[in-house]
Amino acid sequence: MPQDDEASATATGHDGAIEETGRFRPRFDASGLMPCIALDHQTGAVLMMAWVNVRALEETLSSGFAHYWSRSRNRLWKKGETSGALQRIVEVRTDCDQDALLYRVTVADPAGTCHTGRPTCFYRTVPLGPGDLDRPLSFDDADR
Amino acid sequence: MPQDDEASATATGHDGAIEETGRFRPRFDASGLMPCIALDHQTGAVLMMAWVNVRALEETLSSGFAHYWSRSRNRLWKKGETSGALQRIVEVRTDCDQDALLYRVTVADPAGTCHTGRPTCFYRTVPLGPGDLDRPLSFDDADR
Repeated sequence: MPQDDEASATATGHDGAIEETGRFRPRFDASGLMPCIALDHQTGAVLMMAWVNVRALEETLSSGFAHYWSRSRNRLWKKGETSGALQRIVEVRTDCDQDALLYRVTVADPAGTCHTGRPTCFYRTVPLGPGDLDRPLSFDDADR
Repeated sequence: MPQDDEASATATGHDGAIEETGRFRPRFDASGLMPCIALDHQTGAVLMMAWVNVRALEETLSSGFAHYWSRSRNRLWKKGETSGALQRIVEVRTDCDQDALLYRVTVADPAGTCHTGRPTCFYRTVPLGPGDLDRPLSFDDADR
């Protein structure tokens, strides 16, 4: 939980235990999942956002390669097992309330992170300004 | 959806429409929420992971300041409204299947992002290696 205000920490029962503990206590959601950000260790680029469950996280930590849980296929997924775009783990981080993860990785095939053939899944920008969410996107294909 | 294999794109009904469309078509989950990563524009650091709904996203785009949806308090939350750690939006990105967001921001108070007083919520690393998930964490407080 990022800071919003001091009052909220009390109101939501935060007592500092989870934020300051030196033990890993990952908190998965009702579906047993947790969001996970993959970051390129060399470039610092955000590569993708995916989901992990206990099994994917255990496989990641034991193998040193990023694993996720595929919600669409309902199975464990070693990133790059088919495409070759393996993600070697440099570091795994957890956030303050231990309900999100950050994988810092090196990528075997920079072009292969996104299934569209791009090096990141975040290749489109949303223009700022008031109004409906239905608005044009801009492609950032300089890094394609 | 990041790339896993070519077959999965077909198996899960991906036909390239959502990945290549030039229209913003955000896909919220069953609770009306979507995970959102906040990234420091100057340092490239991942600051936090939070959630947005339609209203939070509209407020973000129209005001130019990061808004989220507080699940614990069940209300719209302008980041920094109390703490002063406002996040001015530099850029908003969506991912390939439009079910995750990336806010690139400048922070008004670098120390205030996390409610623990740290500049990022991801201040603890999880050691690699086989075995149970119950393991010690390392604090990275150099940036505190």
